[in-house]
Amino acid sequence: MEESKKISSAVIRRLPRYYRYLGELIESGVQRISSKELSAKMKVTASQIRQDLNNFGGFGQQGYGYNVKYLYDEIAKILGIDTSHNMVIIGAGNLGRAICNYADFEKRGFIIKGVFDNNADIAGEEIRGIQIHMMSELSDFIKNENIEIVALTIPKQAAKDIGKLVADAGVRAIWNFAHTDLNLDEDVIVENVHLSESLMRLSYAIANKER
Amino acid sequence: MEESKKISSAVIRRLPRYYRYLGELIESGVQRISSKELSAKMKVTASQIRQDLNNFGGFGQQGYGYNVKYLYDEIAKILGIDTSHNMVIIGAGNLGRAICNYADFEKRGFIIKGVFDNNADIAGEEIRGIQIHMMSELSDFIKNENIEIVALTIPKQAAKDIGKLVADAGVRAIWNFAHTDLNLDEDVIVENVHLSESLMRLSYAIANKER
Repeated sequence: MEESKKISSAVIRRLPRYYRYLGELIESGVQRISSKELSAKMKVTASQIRQDLNNFGGFGQQGYGYNVKYLYDEIAKILGIDTSHNMVIIGAGNLGRAICNYADFEKRGFIIKGVFDNNADIAGEEIRGIQIHMMSELSDFIKNENIEIVALTIPKQAAKDIGKLVADAGVRAIWNFAHTDLNLDEDVIVENVHLSESLMRLSYAIANKER
Repeated sequence: MEESKKISSAVIRRLPRYYRYLGELIESGVQRISSKELSAKMKVTASQIRQDLNNFGGFGQQGYGYNVKYLYDEIAKILGIDTSHNMVIIGAGNLGRAICNYADFEKRGFIIKGVFDNNADIAGEEIRGIQIHMMSELSDFIKNENIEIVALTIPKQAAKDIGKLVADAGVRAIWNFAHTDLNLDEDVIVENVHLSESLMRLSYAIANKER
């Protein structure tokens, strides 16, 4: 068994951003980069970058900088996106469709296996080749298709019950867009995307910025 | 001029959640709540709640708890949602439509004045009564309609240029859903919603959770 290290959540929050920048560097053909150059691009301090990456054993060689592709792959492993995860989307409204249409998630290993809705009029329709199923099929689908992640894009009134249902069916994580806390058992991971709260932070920033 | 207080970003991140819970309490007819009861509902410690709210001068009376409606209104003021903000959405794809259809934003004072796209086929169409305009009209619209906030729901390739264009037209803040950093002048506020990064944090949590 591997020893588990406790990495601070602030570092974890920054890792996907490193990953994104390194991906862009690879696309531009950059093979090696110093923490100083990366720092200038990302607008964080070079020492922050070195500190963050040291949490995972470094990766850099003094005076040689980072091997971009190697660092990119290592961060992918840390983020768990070096393996694939089966996912379903609940709610075939605009938000569910937006997520379903975003093919980049698949490149990161998030495989959307189905979309679920309770509107019988759209049963069997496809979004980007992915079929819309009825909610009554959800529990069995989760078990049979080995679904790990559920994206919940439904109104808050229904979210708690559906959250419980998919947790009971054995999913490992819920990506929750409903504007409520799910309050599930701790063995189910919940990552919230509360758009209203993001918009309120923006409004706070406006209210508190000097003009 | 009011003295400006420096509130930590962690506190600011939590305020919208307080606001949401207080709103739910009001809906349920609760008029007063102790930090202990609020703590049990929100699953944070009572001392955290007291500390957070003390940043804004308290609001609670020892032994009497908080007046729910008063606290709700005060947090609204702090968050700047006691006044309204004009907003436009750029991109009439699924994500832009999802945001446009979410009428709750209007209840918080975010008034969506228009949606912009470069697809001439949908010019003049309406989403929930809000008209779709062409991108060529954007700069004038921002100036004439006093637009403060732009929601950017377009692919990353176009985002930097459009970000610059709306900044030059005078918006105060960009709610950025494009998967890239905008790197604008510091006088424009940028609140990022990077869905891929949220999904990677979820994947990290799966990879690092004991089963």
